[in-house]
Amino acid sequence: MQDIIDEIASQMLSRADKGKVATYIPQLARVNLEQFAISVATPDGQVVSAGCADTLFSIQSVSKVFTLTLALGKLGENLWHRVGREPSGDPFNSIVQLEHEQGKPRNPFINAGAIAIADAIMQGQAKETLAEILQFVRFLANDNTIAIDERVARSELETGDRNASLAHFMASFGHFHNPVDAVLGIYFHHCSIAMNTQQLATAGLFLANQGINPHTGYAVVSPRRAKRINALMMTCGHYDGSGEFAFRVGLPGKSGVGGGILAIAPGKASIAVWSPGLDPIGNSKLGTEALERLTHKTGWSVFAG
Amino acid sequence: MQDIIDEIASQMLSRADKGKVATYIPQLARVNLEQFAISVATPDGQVVSAGCADTLFSIQSVSKVFTLTLALGKLGENLWHRVGREPSGDPFNSIVQLEHEQGKPRNPFINAGAIAIADAIMQGQAKETLAEILQFVRFLANDNTIAIDERVARSELETGDRNASLAHFMASFGHFHNPVDAVLGIYFHHCSIAMNTQQLATAGLFLANQGINPHTGYAVVSPRRAKRINALMMTCGHYDGSGEFAFRVGLPGKSGVGGGILAIAPGKASIAVWSPGLDPIGNSKLGTEALERLTHKTGWSVFAG
Amino acid sequence: MQDIIDEIASQMLSRADKGKVATYIPQLARVNLEQFAISVATPDGQVVSAGCADTLFSIQSVSKVFTLTLALGKLGENLWHRVGREPSGDPFNSIVQLEHEQGKPRNPFINAGAIAIADAIMQGQAKETLAEILQFVRFLANDNTIAIDERVARSELETGDRNASLAHFMASFGHFHNPVDAVLGIYFHHCSIAMNTQQLATAGLFLANQGINPHTGYAVVSPRRAKRINALMMTCGHYDGSGEFAFRVGLPGKSGVGGGILAIAPGKASIAVWSPGLDPIGNSKLGTEALERLTHKTGWSVFAG
Amino acid sequence: MQDIIDEIASQMLSRADKGKVATYIPQLARVNLEQFAISVATPDGQVVSAGCADTLFSIQSVSKVFTLTLALGKLGENLWHRVGREPSGDPFNSIVQLEHEQGKPRNPFINAGAIAIADAIMQGQAKETLAEILQFVRFLANDNTIAIDERVARSELETGDRNASLAHFMASFGHFHNPVDAVLGIYFHHCSIAMNTQQLATAGLFLANQGINPHTGYAVVSPRRAKRINALMMTCGHYDGSGEFAFRVGLPGKSGVGGGILAIAPGKASIAVWSPGLDPIGNSKLGTEALERLTHKTGWSVFAG
Repeated sequence: MQDIIDEIASQMLSRADKGKVATYIPQLARVNLEQFAISVATPDGQVVSAGCADTLFSIQSVSKVFTLTLALGKLGENLWHRVGREPSGDPFNSIVQLEHEQGKPRNPFINAGAIAIADAIMQGQAKETLAEILQFVRFLANDNTIAIDERVARSELETGDRNASLAHFMASFGHFHNPVDAVLGIYFHHCSIAMNTQQLATAGLFLANQGINPHTGYAVVSPRRAKRINALMMTCGHYDGSGEFAFRVGLPGKSGVGGGILAIAPGKASIAVWSPGLDPIGNSKLGTEALERLTHKTGWSVFAG
Repeated sequence: MQDIIDEIASQMLSRADKGKVATYIPQLARVNLEQFAISVATPDGQVVSAGCADTLFSIQSVSKVFTLTLALGKLGENLWHRVGREPSGDPFNSIVQLEHEQGKPRNPFINAGAIAIADAIMQGQAKETLAEILQFVRFLANDNTIAIDERVARSELETGDRNASLAHFMASFGHFHNPVDAVLGIYFHHCSIAMNTQQLATAGLFLANQGINPHTGYAVVSPRRAKRINALMMTCGHYDGSGEFAFRVGLPGKSGVGGGILAIAPGKASIAVWSPGLDPIGNSKLGTEALERLTHKTGWSVFAG
Repeated sequence: MQDIIDEIASQMLSRADKGKVATYIPQLARVNLEQFAISVATPDGQVVSAGCADTLFSIQSVSKVFTLTLALGKLGENLWHRVGREPSGDPFNSIVQLEHEQGKPRNPFINAGAIAIADAIMQGQAKETLAEILQFVRFLANDNTIAIDERVARSELETGDRNASLAHFMASFGHFHNPVDAVLGIYFHHCSIAMNTQQLATAGLFLANQGINPHTGYAVVSPRRAKRINALMMTCGHYDGSGEFAFRVGLPGKSGVGGGILAIAPGKASIAVWSPGLDPIGNSKLGTEALERLTHKTGWSVFAG
Repeated sequence: MQDIIDEIASQMLSRADKGKVATYIPQLARVNLEQFAISVATPDGQVVSAGCADTLFSIQSVSKVFTLTLALGKLGENLWHRVGREPSGDPFNSIVQLEHEQGKPRNPFINAGAIAIADAIMQGQAKETLAEILQFVRFLANDNTIAIDERVARSELETGDRNASLAHFMASFGHFHNPVDAVLGIYFHHCSIAMNTQQLATAGLFLANQGINPHTGYAVVSPRRAKRINALMMTCGHYDGSGEFAFRVGLPGKSGVGGGILAIAPGKASIAVWSPGLDPIGNSKLGTEALERLTHKTGWSVFAG
């Protein structure tokens, strides 16, 4: 495995076209494009890495996997009254579907869906809810040093009109239980959690291991729920690039605009990659390519025999 | 396995709510709702069945898996200039996406995509193209008795205005190489192929076995292509119910309005179910439920560890 | 008046940017761009003209005013069960609205609406219906020489996939009483009627004169109906350029892709202009400009005091 | 005239089905349905009324006519870079069109367009801008008692998620020059101006009189601009009911969800009606009917000869 990912990391670093960093969040626009990291965590407790696997980056929408898991823990299957489970076929920040479907987001991984989930999780003060989310991610990664990058959160807040629009739109249908601004605060902050690929791969391991985190021995979710979260990551985890990711990589995965991707090979591994350059849809360009090579070499695609 | 599927078949037959048969094609509206069949074909060459696994039914859109395979053989990856690889988020017969995206269908499994593929396959006369498709399905199922139900084909042709609209719409962008009526003739006829679950499970086996049909020993497609077709079935095989099918069943699958579903457990089995009652989206109600139980009992979901 | 329109005609002929002829119908693509004509018919029976007011051109969608009038005569207000009375906000050949509104076109002047009206008019054979439409236009223009340009009709038929798509789409909802191909034949043929501006201005005169054609003395429609047809021309007569036309010209008008426009100044005049070059939306570029100047000089805008 | 409107008022008051008051703004939901008023202001300075023409009501979206006029005065034709001039074919609060057209509203009379205009007008503090708008309306009505109903404004603010969504959506494209909350404050407040039909009819008189208010003698706008504002009211003044209003009434008009309508008969009169019950699209049910009768009796429709 070490050999495979070393080779992939060196190939990725030598690539001329690395995509473009996200520019709409000023803090993300400053990130150096010439960075690549990959970590592979396996159920036996091992984590192997290549590239700058200690460098922190903004996990952004990858955090939606964790808030979905938390929300399912709190609300159970009732959560599906708030969000659907279907790919939307639209960009991550589209509002058209919301108007046609009375303010109910298609799935938990588009922005509208994740904002609805932030509202569903929230109890009491925004600060406490945020602390709970952070605590949950630390628990999953078995690492108490994980923190929110406040500069990124502030940067998002200042440029977050599109997400504010989505939130107010849903609220106009009477779907929100909490003040829109508080919910947005939670959303922007959990997107601003900073992690490295080692931490991220570890945090996702429960999804590859029937719901159990082998580092702590805790059952995070039931095997059935792990399976279902993986299914959602497969069909909806890359917005209107989900079909392409399934076609090329063949693993459930969730991307973030910070350039990170968490991919799950059920029973085999949890993989985190990071390369800040994005493709036109907003998914990590080299991250996707690295995963494509990895599943090609390992035969880990869920679609192979 | 025989025990498992016997139990499932008996449970399904005792269910009160069996969904509704498709009514827009008169010939399909006449089918008796009280029928259920399931066949499981495994790479070792075995086929086990329960229910009326000898009864022929109209495979309808399940045939799109076979025409996609045939088209990829003819055009290779160039086929993707004609159709996309993303879930559309819209119903099977929607035209909205076509207008927004200049007549290029989102994927090969919505009606527009399959019609575009019929045009891509067609060479020379419609009759010859149709003979070639039928021959290919017989080759996959290793059964030369498979035939087209002409009454169903005629019934579709007479009520096929929506598909004619989709075809003319694409043709208006200059995307068609053949006359619209000829292409529609091919499409309506390949949807009218009649098979039973044993034949259908066998025909899909190459997708569960790295591209090789173990009954004949022929490599139908490369392992990579088999993987990719499975990926498309997972993200797009059930129209705007694809996310739900992945969530509940966890296998690549393709449904047809005749009540059949072909599902693939890579490396493990090709499964055909048939129950003519449909859910509101147009997928077999009990067929889906039977597959959900099967993957629950066997652990075959691709998303489990 | 003669002075005013002479000046306008000479200004228009000297303009460098005359727009572009429609290219999607081959016969229209051949028309010489350097032609301009204007005719003003008044309730006193006079017709004054400037430019090539004897040259025949394809009236195309201007014919929709006449088929709407004929259909209202046959079906009365029941016609509004078939088509709406609202601007669509979409291009002339859009199909999106039809899917969202169960196959009912927004208004009689978009293509889908006019095709629905052709179906509503049709009784018995297509040929007879077509003869009836032609006879009606001759009656309105008080000129029996008016004819259909068969080469244009054939040209449209051969390139009419988009309109065929609209027609089949509506038929798929069960809205059609006649075979789709026959209805399309009627539609393509009435769009291919050839007229000159003198004939066209005369044919529209009943709309400026409380429903009465002063040349024949016949009451074509009631004053109320004339008023209502004018209202529809104002809000829907120029597709998604209707607001712009009202803003600039201030008269009810109907454009055709052949470069003709019929505009009505109620109580004052019926005006026909022709200039084959189109703006990006598909309306005559200089035709619109000529009408803007005319209403500016005459004060005929319905919106002025 | 007095006889005509007396008869109309008495007919309206006796009607059983008066529509429904708007419920989404709590303050408007409390209004008594059993009220009707009409005032007709003519260029000679007369104002005749029937019904409760002294009762104040919330003018709501009728105020958009006045903010548009003010914005044109400040920005001239440059305003059209911010908003379009076409009917949208969508409901008053639709966001779909905004996504398809990069955040530029179709016209100044849908909510998004009026919010964009509030931003265009705003200079310095919100309070000052608001004072300027109010001053302008007082100037038009020649009445310094006109005021904003603060309870309505607060009520709107508290339930204004949909408008907040529209505003943030436009702001996300970088189209706004001022803080979203300040702009929304202006918008909600100018919608909350309270007037009676006498004041409203007088305020609109400049549009019927070539831009000049005969009560004060001031030229509010040029004749050309008056004409153009009328054109916009005709094609866009009643949202997706604009075609219907033109068809039935035949006058430029602007409705408000408070049940008021301002209609202009160019050269003849400015008419204000008020009846708080709305039709399903959100326009005053009896207000529209009263105007229909009025134009029928007076022949004032701009579409009649």
